[in-house]
Amino acid sequence: ADIVVLPGDGIGPEVTAAAVQVLLAVAKRYGHAFHFNEHLIGGAAIDATGEALPAATLEAARRADAVLLGAVGGPKWSDPRASVRPEQGLLAIRAALGLFANLRPVAPHPAAFGASPIKPHLLNGVDLLVVRELTGGVYFGRRERSDDRASDLCEYTVAEIERVVRRACELARARRGRLTSVDKANVLETSRLWREVTTRVVREEYPDVELEHQLVDSMAMHLLAKPREYDVIVTENMFGDILTDEASMLAGSLGLLPSASLGEGRVGLYEPIHGSAPDIAGRGIANPYAAILSAALLLRHSLGLDAEAACVEDAVAGVLEAGVFTADLAAEGRAVSTREATIAVI
Amino acid sequence: ADIVVLPGDGIGPEVTAAAVQVLLAVAKRYGHAFHFNEHLIGGAAIDATGEALPAATLEAARRADAVLLGAVGGPKWSDPRASVRPEQGLLAIRAALGLFANLRPVAPHPAAFGASPIKPHLLNGVDLLVVRELTGGVYFGRRERSDDRASDLCEYTVAEIERVVRRACELARARRGRLTSVDKANVLETSRLWREVTTRVVREEYPDVELEHQLVDSMAMHLLAKPREYDVIVTENMFGDILTDEASMLAGSLGLLPSASLGEGRVGLYEPIHGSAPDIAGRGIANPYAAILSAALLLRHSLGLDAEAACVEDAVAGVLEAGVFTADLAAEGRAVSTREATIAVI
Ligand SMILES: CC(C)[C@H](C(=O)O)[C@@H](O)C(=O)O
Ligand SMILES: CC(C)[C@H](C(=O)O)[C@@H](O)C(=O)O
Repeated sequence: ADIVVLPGDGIGPEVTAAAVQVLLAVAKRYGHAFHFNEHLIGGAAIDATGEALPAATLEAARRADAVLLGAVGGPKWSDPRASVRPEQGLLAIRAALGLFANLRPVAPHPAAFGASPIKPHLLNGVDLLVVRELTGGVYFGRRERSDDRASDLCEYTVAEIERVVRRACELARARRGRLTSVDKANVLETSRLWREVTTRVVREEYPDVELEHQLVDSMAMHLLAKPREYDVIVTENMFGDILTDEASMLAGSLGLLPSASLGEGRVGLYEPIHGSAPDIAGRGIANPYAAILSAALLLRHSLGLDAEAACVEDAVAGVLEAGVFTADLAAEGRAVSTREATIAVI
Repeated sequence: ADIVVLPGDGIGPEVTAAAVQVLLAVAKRYGHAFHFNEHLIGGAAIDATGEALPAATLEAARRADAVLLGAVGGPKWSDPRASVRPEQGLLAIRAALGLFANLRPVAPHPAAFGASPIKPHLLNGVDLLVVRELTGGVYFGRRERSDDRASDLCEYTVAEIERVVRRACELARARRGRLTSVDKANVLETSRLWREVTTRVVREEYPDVELEHQLVDSMAMHLLAKPREYDVIVTENMFGDILTDEASMLAGSLGLLPSASLGEGRVGLYEPIHGSAPDIAGRGIANPYAAILSAALLLRHSLGLDAEAACVEDAVAGVLEAGVFTADLAAEGRAVSTREATIAVI
């Protein structure tokens, strides 16, 4: 299999290197051949080529079986008035590859309950999956700017909503069969369309899936007060961005959460949901588990290697149980390095 | 003082009645004369007049010293395709009265730590104030809808950002002098404008205020992981909606959180941040504390009665300490009614 690796910025190179090492170990153990090609994206690409997503990177990604990404961005490139920003590379590759469904599973591990701000009894048994629409909404609408005003257009078509809801329904069927759709239908026109389309798709095509609607503000509460109630949560791009970062607190650290971005095609993009963490970049202390778990999702969703994926996930669960904690998870003084954590998983 | 009361829907009438009783007790004790006039808004107004904000209600509100509101909405009126919705009444009165700054203080009371999903050691000493922009953004932008698509426009002018940031700076000065501005400047044009204007206003007009910028997704995490770090948080309308409901979980229950909506003029609108809770409406068990604390904000911000406001706030703190809990706060079986809670405060 051909895997394009996009290390990106900050801790991106450190955590993707860890994930690649784990994939090499999987290849060896199961007798697969994985070929890795590294390309530029984000700030690193801007520095080298002036563009956040160079054409060569996109071409390589299109031809690959899967893309493994680290993180993009950092203070060096974050002047709000800069004409090119690292994040544009990420948004552009998501759009260009048609990756409309971003899967963000959250299943807190008891070993990390201590690192979560949430009370442990609420975390027991939490196992939810957020499906975030990733190529529409206010992220991709027309922007305008003049001296005295600015605007962003949030737009959704019926087809865009249908395809992500279908994907969420398929995933719900393979789990506990429950779907929570999140919108702001009491205010937004796009949300009213979202609610209508979701209701219709579930009724006509997935009558076996149990559908509930939630307003985004209520959801921001329920996610904390009763996280165990949720199975699959589907929502639009911006709400998904906010709710998944919030949900990450259930797991104790952003450093534990992987994501998979999928489209209709075969190629998927896999990335930790954490950012480039410039404050700790280059110090060898970043938590590699989210990137490693993203590699597990890659094995499952792009390569169809379910046993291999489960093997990696079990290994991460095992090292967490054994208390192999990087600084984000550890109490003062007992933290391991990125390298030690990776070796433990391998 | 003339106070317009808008009970609205669901538990709205029950909790505003409680707040009015407390205000009457204040009037008696301090020798003030408060005149209350009840008017229609929301679903109740739709049923009676066909409109969510009848002209008579708006006229009365304009002439009043302050407006005390319950809550609007409910399943009866929530067909997404209905042409008039209760929420429109609320949005319309906010806009018509020019109430651009929505203040939502969150200072969890130790007696309610048990009801919060957050670990108690994180809640100790939390005292933050969210200032949510309330009359702009995607809430009031142009909406379009056709068979196959829908859109909402998020728009901000420099003047809209300036005035709410100034209000937040004034509030920060009277507190711990720290301001956190929340946006999504790595994606949205409106957020980049927000960040520029905020930076300039603070630098030029409030150099003594310490300003920090946060992305909304990170903020959704930090609010849970280190809530003590925050003093005043200022943000745009939709982000403020989501983040304040999330922040309410710090306080243990939405039923404890008041809000004040202020403009340039004298008249302010005061309402609990909870909704109409149709599931418990009419049963006499709603938590009246948020409405009562909203009345305290009314005393302070619209009537300039600081001692009276503090007296009401102390009374609520006192009954919480004494364990006078409505069902949302109490462990099974020990809950008091709305009436009992109100009498305890009085
Ligand atoms: C970096 C940023 C553009 C991105 C987003 O908002 O989608 C990130 O926050 C994420 O969630 O992947
Ligand atoms: C009822 C709804 C329109 C309203 C809002 O979104 O502003 C409510 O959630 C609030 O926060 O006051």
